[in-house]
Parts: sequence; structure tokens; C-alpha cells
Amino acid sequence: MIPEHTLDEALKDLFANIQFQPTPEGLYDPLRYMISIGGKRIRPRLCLTTYGIYQSELTPQILEPAAGLEVFHTFTLIHDDIMDRSPLRRGHDTVWKKWNEDTAILSGDVMCIDAYKRIAKAPAAVLPEALALFSKTASEVCDGQQLDMDFEKRSRVSMNEYMQMIGLKTGVLLACSAQMGALIGGADKWSQECFYEFGYYLGLAFQVADDYLDAYGDQKVFGKPIGGDILNGKKSWLTVKAQEMGADGLEEALAAPAVTEEEKSAKIARVKAIYDSVGIADAARKAIGDLSTRAVFKGTDAGMDASGHQALKDFAHSLIGRTM
Amino acid sequence: MIPEHTLDEALKDLFANIQFQPTPEGLYDPLRYMISIGGKRIRPRLCLTTYGIYQSELTPQILEPAAGLEVFHTFTLIHDDIMDRSPLRRGHDTVWKKWNEDTAILSGDVMCIDAYKRIAKAPAAVLPEALALFSKTASEVCDGQQLDMDFEKRSRVSMNEYMQMIGLKTGVLLACSAQMGALIGGADKWSQECFYEFGYYLGLAFQVADDYLDAYGDQKVFGKPIGGDILNGKKSWLTVKAQEMGADGLEEALAAPAVTEEEKSAKIARVKAIYDSVGIADAARKAIGDLSTRAVFKGTDAGMDASGHQALKDFAHSLIGRTM
Repeated sequence: MIPEHTLDEALKDLFANIQFQPTPEGLYDPLRYMISIGGKRIRPRLCLTTYGIYQSELTPQILEPAAGLEVFHTFTLIHDDIMDRSPLRRGHDTVWKKWNEDTAILSGDVMCIDAYKRIAKAPAAVLPEALALFSKTASEVCDGQQLDMDFEKRSRVSMNEYMQMIGLKTGVLLACSAQMGALIGGADKWSQECFYEFGYYLGLAFQVADDYLDAYGDQKVFGKPIGGDILNGKKSWLTVKAQEMGADGLEEALAAPAVTEEEKSAKIARVKAIYDSVGIADAARKAIGDLSTRAVFKGTDAGMDASGHQALKDFAHSLIGRTM
Repeated sequence: MIPEHTLDEALKDLFANIQFQPTPEGLYDPLRYMISIGGKRIRPRLCLTTYGIYQSELTPQILEPAAGLEVFHTFTLIHDDIMDRSPLRRGHDTVWKKWNEDTAILSGDVMCIDAYKRIAKAPAAVLPEALALFSKTASEVCDGQQLDMDFEKRSRVSMNEYMQMIGLKTGVLLACSAQMGALIGGADKWSQECFYEFGYYLGLAFQVADDYLDAYGDQKVFGKPIGGDILNGKKSWLTVKAQEMGADGLEEALAAPAVTEEEKSAKIARVKAIYDSVGIADAARKAIGDLSTRAVFKGTDAGMDASGHQALKDFAHSLIGRTM
């Protein structure tokens, strides 16, 4: 078992010292930039956590694949930000905004390839499985982004469809991260699958929590302005659930234009009043709780001792605890 | 040794029956479309050719990686066409033109991942090498595209710089294809490196030939209108060489606007007259001949019998012969 503070230190070092090719600068500077503006490193942390349940030493054979998961995630952010026309990411300009769209496309591409280079550092004995897991996941993440864009064009999306979409967009990469650590750590196939499920449901809980905090969070803790999804008319767990619960006037309220700060505040208040009328906040907190309970229930079925169980619970709490 | 007509049949089958995930259709239809509009399948053909020097049976362990090389190449075309704002590819609409830019970005991404899935079908015993070779090459292709875009902003590019750029953009993927076939076929390390060099110089010869044919080719054989590079003011081997040879007035002639068909013909004629004044056509034919001779010289240093030598010569001739 590797203690949490050792993982913290290792993650800090890993991303403070991550190397990308120096030139052409126009191609690789955006990679350095995106890693430098931070992020919670959730995926590599999860990968190292499940690895640490089985092993006591961190080597490049686990650290590089763990970094690869973050690099891949960051690549998807660069391309998603082009497609979503998002000017800001973690409080900084997005790559297409800071450079241009062509740079964002090509730097994203080379970042995806860089992720594969790191995944390929997994021990040769498990490389075929590690690679198959990663590639399956990577294409599912693209499927999820496509569904997300397809859903934006539709007026109604069912809760099943929404959960499938966030499962692909967010769940599978956390699932892959949890399984990857266990695979490289030497866990048996059954246990690997338990960790996969752990990551998957935790990813769902995390995404629903993100949707919830966008409307009900504390801006200081959440890290971005409250009500962004509402102002952008974005489909979220809250809108899908509210429609399912028969909330009145939601579509009109979300479609209403809001330009001035006053109009924006009024729009957020109007939508939240509709949410409140059907009790969305409670429903969301319950769903988040159920999903993370389910994650821990699935994960702790893996073959490991009590300290492993505790590590999973701690991880789930640190990720989801902020909501509850 | 696998006879050429067997490779022809196998390649036809491979791409006629290539499978991509059925849904989401908006994501995978562009992949099917791009493969269906054809292409010469040079990279998989080269891969199967060097494999066929060592083995007599085609199995999925070579056919899938060979397909992966074509899939990767096609992914780069989808993204390059966005960056170059090209409306046509092989006489058909490009993906961003037929669908839209977001689709071209995301379908390209999933196509790159699909390429990795196919490369990963290489035999486990050589998978780490196959993967390292492929990823190194893949990022170099991005480096080449970046240099190409960087060069467009500069008024002068040296011949060394130009050859380095086309080496990255075109040379390394042919080199990788030739080495991949030999690696999976069981060739020793030295022979693999000889095939790499064969592919690399052949790629350079191929790109210079493409530049040459753009000005001096027969439209029916070349497959696209003559003078495209001139009208787009694109840097090519011809412009770089002509500048190096001290051609007068080339920059002005390339920068001249041309809207009507008459103006376009006049612009092409004017630039070609400058080329002719320094004897560019002969210089290009000599360079192409030298590069393909060098390719064959390097390649035939690999450990193989006389039929292998002949296979490399035939491949080089079929690829470059159209120019000479």
C-alpha cells in the first residue's frame, strides 16, 4: 500500500517535471501550457491509488501510463473547447483562443499521440491489455462527445440517454484509470473489473455533482461562476431530471436571452425557481449519493485487504464529498 | 515471398471490407466515406511488400497493422484539409466541407485512435517495438505539418529545411510502413533499418515528384488540375530550388492575383517560364531519380535474396515511374 501523501508528492513531481518535445514550439507550447494551468489530476491519482493497493513502489512503468491518462484527458479538452467555442478553461484562455484553431487541432493531435507513448511504457507483459483498454476507452470518449453534440440539437433527452452520454464522456476514462492501475499493479481479472466499475460509477457521480454545483455550488469552492450551464442553455442532469419530473416552463426559461448582468441573474433565478418547484436539488444529491455508494460497493468487491477498501472510500469521498 | 497480384487482391479486400463502429453515425460515417473515396494505399502496400519478402502468408497480425497505417494517413488528411481550407480531396468534398468542422475534428480524432487499435494487432512479441515505431512516426508527421504551416508564413525556406519538412510530412510514414512490414515479417534489426531508409528516401522522391507533376504533369495521369501549387502560392520543391538557383521575379509571380481562368492560365505560364529559365524541370527529374536510386540502394542492403531486391525495385518503379 502506498500512502496518500506519497501519491500526492509523486503527482506533483510528475506534472511539474513532465517533458514534451522542445520544438517545433508552435506545436508543443500549447501542451506545456495546458498541463501548467493545472487541473485536479483525478485520473492519474485514481490510477496510482488502485496500483498502490497492490504495490509499494512507484516506477516509470506506472507513472508514465498514469501521466498518459491525464495527457489524453487534456487532449480531449483542447479539442472539445474548439467544438464548444469555450474561451476559458480553468480560468485561463483555451488553446484555440490563446493561439488559433489550427494550432488547437494539431497540438491536440500530437497530445493524443503523446498519451499513447506514455501508455506504451506499461510493462510488456500487460501491454496488449493496457493498450486495448486504453484504445477502447479513448474511442468511447469520442462517442460521448458526439452524443453530447447530437443531444444539443434535440429538445428532449431521456435520463437513460443522458446517463449513457456522461458514462462515455466521463465515466469510462475514470473506469479505465482505475483498471489500468490495478492491471499494472498485478490485480486479477475479476478485481480489475471491480475497479473499472468503481471508476465508472464514480465518474457518473462526479459528472452529476458537477451539474449540481453549476446551479447550487459555492463559486469559491466550485472554481467557476455559478449558473454557466443555465446561461448557455446546456443540457445537464438537472434539466433532464426536471423535464422527467414534469417541470413547467423550463424550455422557455432556458431559451430566454440574457445579455446584461441583471438579465443573467434573473434568468438563473427563474430556472432555479423551476428546479426548486420539483425539488431537483434533493433529487440530485440523492442521485450523487446513490452513484458513489454504488461505486464503492462495486469497487470493494475486488480482492484486497481492509486498507484497500479504505483507500477507495477515501478517494470517493475526496472527489464527491465537496457536494454533500 | 508473396506475389504482387496476391498483395493487390488482399489490399482490395482489406479496404472494401474495412469495418468501423456503426454508431454514432455522425462520428463514423466520415471514416467510411474517406476510405471509400480511395487513394493508392501506398503505405499498406509498402508494409505488405516488405513483410512478403520474409513471409508467405497474410494473417490479421500483418493486415490489421497495414490497414492502421492507411487509417492513420487518412486521419491526417481529414485534419490537414481543415487547416489548409481544402474543399476537395481525390475529386470529392473534404470532410469539413461535406459535414462541418466539428465533425472533421472529432471524426479525425476517433480515426487516429482506430489506427492505434489496428497497430495493436501486431504480434505481442514485437508489439512494444511496433508501437514505439508508430508513435514516433505519428508525432513526426504532426511536426511536419507544423513546419509546413510555419514555412507558409516565411518568404524564404532553404532546401535543407524543405527536405526536412517533407521528410517529416511524407518520408517517415513510408519509412515506418516499410519497417513495420519487415519487423512483423521477422527481419533482423539491421534489415529493418535498411527498409526504413528505403521508405524514407522513397517518400522524399514521391513528394518531389508530386511537386514536379503539379507543374509539369499530365492532368489525366496526375488526377488533379495542373498548376494548383502555383495558383495557391504554395512552397514546393520547385519554388525552393528556383530561389536557390537565383530565379528572377518568382516571388512576385507567385503572389500575383488570378481570378479568371485566363488570369490563372497566364499566372501558371508566367511562373513556369521562370522555372524554365533556370532549368527546374531537369533539376527536379534529376533529384527524383537520385532520391529513388538512393532509396533502392539503402533498401537492398537488407538481408534478403534476389527476389526481395526485385520487389523493392518494382515498388519504387511503380511509385515513381509515372514521373520519369
